[in-house]
Amino acid sequence: MNSTNKRFGIAIHGGAGTILKALMTKEKEAAYHQALQNALDAGYALLQSGKSSLDAVEAAVRSLEDFPLFNAGKGAVFTHNGTHEMDASIMFGADLSAGAVSGISSIRNPVSLARVVMEKSGHVYLSGVEAENFGKLQGLVCESPAYFYEESRYKQLLDIRDSDSYQLDHTDKTESGEKKFGTVGAVALDAMGNLAAATSTGGMTNKRFGRVGDTPIIGAGTYANNKTCAISCTGHGEYFIRAVVAYDISCLMEYRGMSLEEAARFVVNDKLVKFGGEGGLVGMDADGNYVLAFNSEGMYRGIKNAEGINEIKIYES
Amino acid sequence: MNSTNKRFGIAIHGGAGTILKALMTKEKEAAYHQALQNALDAGYALLQSGKSSLDAVEAAVRSLEDFPLFNAGKGAVFTHNGTHEMDASIMFGADLSAGAVSGISSIRNPVSLARVVMEKSGHVYLSGVEAENFGKLQGLVCESPAYFYEESRYKQLLDIRDSDSYQLDHTDKTESGEKKFGTVGAVALDAMGNLAAATSTGGMTNKRFGRVGDTPIIGAGTYANNKTCAISCTGHGEYFIRAVVAYDISCLMEYRGMSLEEAARFVVNDKLVKFGGEGGLVGMDADGNYVLAFNSEGMYRGIKNAEGINEIKIYES
Repeated sequence: MNSTNKRFGIAIHGGAGTILKALMTKEKEAAYHQALQNALDAGYALLQSGKSSLDAVEAAVRSLEDFPLFNAGKGAVFTHNGTHEMDASIMFGADLSAGAVSGISSIRNPVSLARVVMEKSGHVYLSGVEAENFGKLQGLVCESPAYFYEESRYKQLLDIRDSDSYQLDHTDKTESGEKKFGTVGAVALDAMGNLAAATSTGGMTNKRFGRVGDTPIIGAGTYANNKTCAISCTGHGEYFIRAVVAYDISCLMEYRGMSLEEAARFVVNDKLVKFGGEGGLVGMDADGNYVLAFNSEGMYRGIKNAEGINEIKIYES
Repeated sequence: MNSTNKRFGIAIHGGAGTILKALMTKEKEAAYHQALQNALDAGYALLQSGKSSLDAVEAAVRSLEDFPLFNAGKGAVFTHNGTHEMDASIMFGADLSAGAVSGISSIRNPVSLARVVMEKSGHVYLSGVEAENFGKLQGLVCESPAYFYEESRYKQLLDIRDSDSYQLDHTDKTESGEKKFGTVGAVALDAMGNLAAATSTGGMTNKRFGRVGDTPIIGAGTYANNKTCAISCTGHGEYFIRAVVAYDISCLMEYRGMSLEEAARFVVNDKLVKFGGEGGLVGMDADGNYVLAFNSEGMYRGIKNAEGINEIKIYES
């Protein structure tokens, strides 16, 4: 495992939850597969041409953001007010540089806004309309609300908008019985041996009061450190924040000597289950080992690496 | 150290940085001392009467927020736009429940808003005007901009407002040569053996683009867990986020077996110094041991506990 640079690769997720095979048409499943493959390919092509893991995770997440069936970017769910409030973050394991944004309504690719925050703002975390203004000054592509309008998402809002309790929206539960934690993310190791992670989300359907989940929280939803691992999470954000999930895995590796696989399985399938936190994550270490872990019934996920592995899965097996 | 309930106590800070004795008048120093003593007393009285550590840290931070010389609540610094954007968070070590808010302009005590978010919202983190709306629905006291106007703070803004680079505002550096990371915070252990932590800030003078620091980030600026410790940080927030400072100390205790003192000294005086992150923190463990650590020239700080210790300090010694 010395020559990490020969084991470059990328792992992605498109959210975890109760993904019911009974409700999935062949056409829809094929569309998901294709979207995940496109994202893997976009990131992997950059790794193969010698670009950084940072470029790869940004490209993969942009691809996922542009696909309307994932809850991020174009497919972001609606808030209670019928608007969109998107969150994203990115981190580079070589120097622990990081960028994060929340409450974004008009930037086409929030992950790219997180990246310019990291590289150009002198800060780590910008929020709301003012963060968008920063993105506009940096030349990012903006979109009107019409771009983010998806009829199926709007129906999801109407299904639960009049519920008294905004806590119901936790579950993003539709009449169909599906329960999904819509978030997309990627982790990558590049040929230089550097790790990176990125995550992006539209949050919860019907969310109110400026709710922010774990996606823009460095250490919770996203973390990358060449000494240990890169992690991107998806799940019930409140639990992921309180459990500091992404950094916990890094600490278990650094301070307890666990492998990535051991640490991720322990956190996702033991600690989070006992804590009540449903969801999952993708992770990669500096040797190119990867993990796709979740404690929900399914997770949209994929892995592609220099050893020739190219896998996409949705359900448990 | 079995009967933790006999070692209850509270530790507080009012920010770290270059606090120059030459610029401090006797009257100002006495005012700082009194404000820190008032905050310690407010929290300690609750602990002594059997109330929870959560009540104690909230009361202490409210007291610090109400004192105009600290950068939080009434004394919050001005943003580039001449407004106030305050952040706060709170966490309870017994069940890892947590609340956080950012971008708050009109709530008198942001730490109390963080607490109602924790207890009443079903969420962990709410932001901006909508978070304030939630606070208003919960009956929190609101204030007009006039309440938060402090002439000295406004002069600090005017000193640097026209600087081209908003990065300058990182340092909150005034013409006087002072450089302060204005944040207030408290950690406490109660007679039931439960830990809690809370932090509140006005952020950086002249901040732009909705910048958020480490204060509302669970795991970075604030963390509490009965298994390990309660931590409240103050410092250059971007570094504290990237280093996940508060949870790092917890992990070094849990996974490496370090004491609170060892872990805090290692993170603040070794890791953060090498990383370039200036600041400090207060911490307490479940046995009532406490630490007041900083790598800057000074930190407003105090400790009061059931063993009769009652100390307030500003400078290094």
